[in-house]
Amino acid sequence: MKKYFFSIIICFISIHLFAQNEDSVFIRRVANEILSNGKAYDNLRDLTKNVGARLAGSPGMVKAEKWGLRVMKESGADKAWLQECMVPHWVRGGQDKAEALYSGSSKKSLYVAALGNSIGSGGKAVSADVIEVTSFNDLESKKDQVKGKIVFYNYHFNPTFVQTFQSYGDAVRYRSAGASRASKYGAVAVIVRSMSHSTDNFPHTGGMNYDTAYPKIPAVAIGLQDADWLNAQLQKSQVKVSLTTYARFLPDTIGHNVIGELTGSEFPNEYITVGGHLDSWDLAEGAHDDGAGVTQTMEILRAFKALGYTPKHSIRFVLFSNEENGLRGGIKYAEEAKAKNEKQIFGLESDAGGFTPRSFSMGGSVAQLEKARSWIPLFLPYGVYQINRGGGGADVSPLTRALGTPTGELSPDSQRYFDYHHAANDVFENVNKRELELGAINMAAFIYLVDKYGL
Amino acid sequence: MKKYFFSIIICFISIHLFAQNEDSVFIRRVANEILSNGKAYDNLRDLTKNVGARLAGSPGMVKAEKWGLRVMKESGADKAWLQECMVPHWVRGGQDKAEALYSGSSKKSLYVAALGNSIGSGGKAVSADVIEVTSFNDLESKKDQVKGKIVFYNYHFNPTFVQTFQSYGDAVRYRSAGASRASKYGAVAVIVRSMSHSTDNFPHTGGMNYDTAYPKIPAVAIGLQDADWLNAQLQKSQVKVSLTTYARFLPDTIGHNVIGELTGSEFPNEYITVGGHLDSWDLAEGAHDDGAGVTQTMEILRAFKALGYTPKHSIRFVLFSNEENGLRGGIKYAEEAKAKNEKQIFGLESDAGGFTPRSFSMGGSVAQLEKARSWIPLFLPYGVYQINRGGGGADVSPLTRALGTPTGELSPDSQRYFDYHHAANDVFENVNKRELELGAINMAAFIYLVDKYGL
Repeated sequence: MKKYFFSIIICFISIHLFAQNEDSVFIRRVANEILSNGKAYDNLRDLTKNVGARLAGSPGMVKAEKWGLRVMKESGADKAWLQECMVPHWVRGGQDKAEALYSGSSKKSLYVAALGNSIGSGGKAVSADVIEVTSFNDLESKKDQVKGKIVFYNYHFNPTFVQTFQSYGDAVRYRSAGASRASKYGAVAVIVRSMSHSTDNFPHTGGMNYDTAYPKIPAVAIGLQDADWLNAQLQKSQVKVSLTTYARFLPDTIGHNVIGELTGSEFPNEYITVGGHLDSWDLAEGAHDDGAGVTQTMEILRAFKALGYTPKHSIRFVLFSNEENGLRGGIKYAEEAKAKNEKQIFGLESDAGGFTPRSFSMGGSVAQLEKARSWIPLFLPYGVYQINRGGGGADVSPLTRALGTPTGELSPDSQRYFDYHHAANDVFENVNKRELELGAINMAAFIYLVDKYGL
Repeated sequence: MKKYFFSIIICFISIHLFAQNEDSVFIRRVANEILSNGKAYDNLRDLTKNVGARLAGSPGMVKAEKWGLRVMKESGADKAWLQECMVPHWVRGGQDKAEALYSGSSKKSLYVAALGNSIGSGGKAVSADVIEVTSFNDLESKKDQVKGKIVFYNYHFNPTFVQTFQSYGDAVRYRSAGASRASKYGAVAVIVRSMSHSTDNFPHTGGMNYDTAYPKIPAVAIGLQDADWLNAQLQKSQVKVSLTTYARFLPDTIGHNVIGELTGSEFPNEYITVGGHLDSWDLAEGAHDDGAGVTQTMEILRAFKALGYTPKHSIRFVLFSNEENGLRGGIKYAEEAKAKNEKQIFGLESDAGGFTPRSFSMGGSVAQLEKARSWIPLFLPYGVYQINRGGGGADVSPLTRALGTPTGELSPDSQRYFDYHHAANDVFENVNKRELELGAINMAAFIYLVDKYGL
């Protein structure tokens, strides 16, 4: 009996090892294909340099959708199409300007950028003395001095969080809610220290929201060097700033998700979704955010086709519309999946930059997380060594809400992300070819394993 | 009895957990100090921009040694001094030039750089037809066609190694030994494809050696774009190249290791050595190679002093001389340690770039490696998740040979290293502040743990 038992165990272990070996061999083939013949980097050059900025509603968005559909087909999709959704249409409307008047008659131009979704000054200067606050608590303590002023939120990105997304999560409330919190006490505009611990002076834009209970006032991000100058100058003298911005909303317009599909051989009506978002802020090329995720997504498709791999389930490769200031693409995709009663077994996203991979974050049940973690030895040669409990990316998260789909997101090294995030220096030249490709390799491996073993 | 046994176990576990917790708290303090008040990045800017290139024997070397001694003192060394050693004095001697003549009378300038330690053409052009070989085997098969020609080694960096140092180890023999292997068959010069899988055109220099059995011929590295052009052109026509280089050796000269010390409280005559190398190739600022290691080394010292940490053993912070083309500094340091019968308990180096940390490599016994690995949970929050068997860096390895000292090296992410290695773009702007700092944090943690627990 004992002997019999051991035979079963050995047999089981053998099968398990064989499967592991088969998987590691396939993943090695995917890696070799991507590292040797990869197109993600060339596609990223094309997207960033020939399409460029592509905010929802902009001519760049339309161009990007055509580009995406073409590259999706070239990458080998069995079918590819556009999925229509209405998107917001916010425009910067002109060149944001800010001039500081200090120490009597000295003047200094400040490098600012209107926050996304903010209402501009209509092209006329808003001129007022600046009052600096370091936090919302500080704002509350100074609320009687705010009326008629421009509030300068000088909350620093916390450098001691090793994971920089923690610093972002900590600081971003000043960008998103700072305008209305200041408007409540009569501020005429806000200047927000950029969400970054870079050492340069690029202002970092990004989405904000107004609390409709208070007047909508102009809101800009300021570069870090100018923020530090403003802080230092305010210790010495009053500073008056003239702020001129042009931002406004036009009526919603039509945008599209770009979708490609590899049809499953066994379960064609069950889907694995993988994607990144096609839109970018208007200031830059959107290379890391999220040209990286877009080109990695199509690289997985290209590599699977190049290797003649036919998945058991259908795989959807999705370039989502309007992640930056509306998430309408991700919502639309989940809505339609729900309306069609699609079985969506997993959603994976890349929207944290094209940097060297370290981990995945993942939602779902404890059992699903443990199953995914059992695959870490297969990811390890390519840089992923942990899977953390967390959500999927913004674009796939509506799948969880609509259908309960477990979702995940690639978590590459985060040290450089906020040097470029939503700023004019988020350009192709700041992406490394191999780091981008390693992200695609780990994602491809994850998709392959979910397709083979389920979750 | 059983109860008594469990009490001991619980007591033991408690002490162990307390120690682990005490360690993690201290390492967190080190991390906060470095991430909040770090000077490594400012020091690196100063070294790269105000000292610049600093090859052994050059005026830059002398300037760098003065700089190093000053910053070592400013960082808080209990004592700091220069340790003299003779260093080779190779000079490039002029602007390397290569011009290709092809398809009859068309001309193209090629971007080349004489290899370190090579003998130039004496400022006169060496002109000859080019013969391309893809490997030493290929050279052997074409040995009868080599006489009077310039041999072009077009061996590609293998993109499928995820650890790029494997690609380097695989390809570097063409740089180091290619000239004499070709000279053996009568070649008049060699052009070597740069040791890189970057997408730009910078030639990457680096050390080479002659086999004295054959004539010493000029040897240059060529940028990858020009290498690809040369390869393509050779399919279409003969290509004649005129190569003009000026490199030569001057007599050996005096260089110095820069050494700082924190004196141990319990074992002042037992040493832990940590360092990087102060010299760099002449073409660039040596930011990653090895300004990063130099400034990380002094940052560990600065952080320990800022926190009032007194080590039990003496810690030596060493900026080694002449790693690039002689290793005389590392050899001298070990020689003197042996002559003085110093007890050197550990040597740690950073010479793989200022990139985001992933692991350490380490020599020593199995037990020492296992002990170090037991500390991985303490490194993990700062990015190091594995310790691989391997050697220490080049500069600390003479300690192993002389005294049996176990040594290690920081292994940061390697994807970008060979984009910059030994090339003109190894500049400050390509180093990220936080990645540099995280390397210093993990090294500081390792030093602290060895100081506390031994190896």
